[in-house]
Amino acid sequence: MGASQQEQGPLRVALLGCGVVGSEVARLLTQQSADLASRVGAPLELVGIAVRDASAPRPLAESVDRSLLTEDAEGLVTRADIVIEVMGGIEPARSLLLRAIEAGAAVVTANKALLAEDGPTLYKAADTAGVDIYFEAAVAGAIPIVRPVRESLAGDHVRRILGIVNGTTNYVLDQMASTGMSFDDAVKQAQDLGYAEADPTADVEGFDAAAKAAILASLAFHTRVSLEDVAREGITAITADDVAWAAQTGHVIKLLAIAEAVTGDDGAHGVSVRVHPALVPLTHPLAGVRGAFNAVFVEADAAGELMFYGRGAGGSPTASAVLGDVVSAARHRVLGGKGPEESIYAALPILPASTAVTRYQVRLAVDDRPGVLAQVAQVLASKGVSIEAVRQPSEPSDGTQGDGPTGVAHLVITTHAAAEAALAATVDAIAVLEPVREITSVLRVEGA
Amino acid sequence: MGASQQEQGPLRVALLGCGVVGSEVARLLTQQSADLASRVGAPLELVGIAVRDASAPRPLAESVDRSLLTEDAEGLVTRADIVIEVMGGIEPARSLLLRAIEAGAAVVTANKALLAEDGPTLYKAADTAGVDIYFEAAVAGAIPIVRPVRESLAGDHVRRILGIVNGTTNYVLDQMASTGMSFDDAVKQAQDLGYAEADPTADVEGFDAAAKAAILASLAFHTRVSLEDVAREGITAITADDVAWAAQTGHVIKLLAIAEAVTGDDGAHGVSVRVHPALVPLTHPLAGVRGAFNAVFVEADAAGELMFYGRGAGGSPTASAVLGDVVSAARHRVLGGKGPEESIYAALPILPASTAVTRYQVRLAVDDRPGVLAQVAQVLASKGVSIEAVRQPSEPSDGTQGDGPTGVAHLVITTHAAAEAALAATVDAIAVLEPVREITSVLRVEGA
Repeated sequence: MGASQQEQGPLRVALLGCGVVGSEVARLLTQQSADLASRVGAPLELVGIAVRDASAPRPLAESVDRSLLTEDAEGLVTRADIVIEVMGGIEPARSLLLRAIEAGAAVVTANKALLAEDGPTLYKAADTAGVDIYFEAAVAGAIPIVRPVRESLAGDHVRRILGIVNGTTNYVLDQMASTGMSFDDAVKQAQDLGYAEADPTADVEGFDAAAKAAILASLAFHTRVSLEDVAREGITAITADDVAWAAQTGHVIKLLAIAEAVTGDDGAHGVSVRVHPALVPLTHPLAGVRGAFNAVFVEADAAGELMFYGRGAGGSPTASAVLGDVVSAARHRVLGGKGPEESIYAALPILPASTAVTRYQVRLAVDDRPGVLAQVAQVLASKGVSIEAVRQPSEPSDGTQGDGPTGVAHLVITTHAAAEAALAATVDAIAVLEPVREITSVLRVEGA
Repeated sequence: MGASQQEQGPLRVALLGCGVVGSEVARLLTQQSADLASRVGAPLELVGIAVRDASAPRPLAESVDRSLLTEDAEGLVTRADIVIEVMGGIEPARSLLLRAIEAGAAVVTANKALLAEDGPTLYKAADTAGVDIYFEAAVAGAIPIVRPVRESLAGDHVRRILGIVNGTTNYVLDQMASTGMSFDDAVKQAQDLGYAEADPTADVEGFDAAAKAAILASLAFHTRVSLEDVAREGITAITADDVAWAAQTGHVIKLLAIAEAVTGDDGAHGVSVRVHPALVPLTHPLAGVRGAFNAVFVEADAAGELMFYGRGAGGSPTASAVLGDVVSAARHRVLGGKGPEESIYAALPILPASTAVTRYQVRLAVDDRPGVLAQVAQVLASKGVSIEAVRQPSEPSDGTQGDGPTGVAHLVITTHAAAEAALAATVDAIAVLEPVREITSVLRVEGA
């Protein structure tokens, strides 16, 4: 119909990178070429696949012509209408994309590290050249989240985004919760299953989630947010004990990427972007996100609560997101028009994570005698931190009981929303109370 | 940036309908005009609001100029760049939208009934005129589902969509599950809370869900699907007993809109589109969708499993979806280009719902004596229906025990995937067995 019935020459597509994602993109481009042509209104022709070593053995689908492999990435990007970058890393990805944009190609990238570090340079170059830049696959893999936030919610105001955007850490925390295993054992199991790298630092320390948080925050709040704006805390300090106590109090621990509108001490509006483990109530939709799945929960003024759930990584899911972007960019080549450009008109200040007001759960070991609870509650009241509940529960039934010294009781205090500074001062004051033996853990509660 | 920095006159926006959704759209258009102008690259000017009776009292936000109200809808649509239709019903909505399209306006509609009945006429008119038609709000309210299916998954193959797309029935079933109340009581409560109409037929008989199923199936399978193609069964026959037994076997009952790729007896590929209550395993993400929320679960070849969750109805959520569409259409006016058009290149046959192969749960009352289970299992085997489990449980603890006659036992049979015809023949054969007193219920199991 319409323009799609006109005679239209093929669009030339260049692929940079041929790993797990790249080989799947190549397979889909070639095996689904008829469907893609129908959706675009013109055939897509894969004109080259840039790799470091074209002679290295690699598992490519039979439909892919191996003679397309080339080590000349720089030459390839100047002879394409659309350049797909799935090589990862900062360089040479950045230089190649900039070269492609200058040569007038639309670009599609799955490179979260590059976008979080230097996205604005790419967005600006694309804007100047008048070409599309799409990156759905850079956040939460196959889950359409970039497009909904950029386009579906374009008439709404996002208040907060809570995302489980790292499948490795979600798998680790889910295993700890469902089996009671330790953090180290869960990481080892994730490594055995291929969910975690040999060096899991980027995942468990929250670097990967922080890059995605920066990208999501930029989109949702029309403000430039880069990796160094993201306050980051990983999950390495989470113990089996923390997980068991969370369950006992009706929560599950998740590593959350959070971007939210906040108001600073001076009344100025801004954005807080942070990644940290948090207690999520079992009744919250994010609590049910199991295994290596990802989900992004969005709170918007008019839309209310939305959640997007799916596979956040893997060759096929990521390739699906890349192909959706390729179809959009290709349709613009055929029909005219242009995708969303970087929208930074709001230019909100990035306020420190401590600006965010959240609920906390503080767990402490105290002498098992009357009056201690009242003494602790008194400290909270004096610091202006309001208590939602204080529990003095029996040990969670996960086999940890009996390890502790006798005569020790545990208190679990859940606060109402409190500022980080007030909470920290409160914890310091509680820690020096005579009957308090140890502040066992302090965790934020989100999504309540 | 780019074109958005050029001098650009305002885009004229006409609104048809000023009920719960329309008044909220008017409020957002006026109160968020600065943000919208930034996102579009040009101001949006609301030039008129067509209503049946302009003098009737209506709660409009103060930001909305009441002199915009007009009874001349036909005149209004010819002096707008973008026409928003939120009046509902088939006529005059259809005629007005066609007139707007002929006059060269882009149209945004939330009218699921119209799209399910005669969408192709509108899509064709828009295509001929070269204008955009957007309808995110017609399916699942605020949840971005139309855009992801049309655009994000454009490079993938959808295998199946399972949707909870009617908030009223989900509220009713959720109340029955959480409190044990009867269907009638739950409907009454939904009416009291404003979740259900005084005449709840369109919801509880599945008509509303069927309209959305037709729209979703069309998009996902690139095939024209209209309301009469949808096999439909409501929830009026679901009893408190059914709900209690579902819980006992690890399921929850949901009204599902299902569109899936199927293979007919002759080996031909086609699409099955149906709406019916089904047992959903408690471990499935759809099982956790509570209250009046909606969710759409998508299974695609490359993306794997995706779920989209949020508010499916209500003024603000629907208005959010409408505004997102308005921004997309407006950007095309400013920057050139065009949104997705109807894609029916696949033109798959719509196969009867009986083509779909699903699991079933059959519940029966039998004489409480040895050998009955074996006799029933023998019938299933003889009909080629494979058994996943036969349970002979105690009564669910919901207070229904003691009502039945003594000497009666209950069998709950869960089958592996079976064709509807084979299952029906099996049920007939079981019903006439001497020790079988009653086939209590036959429900499909989906999402396993």
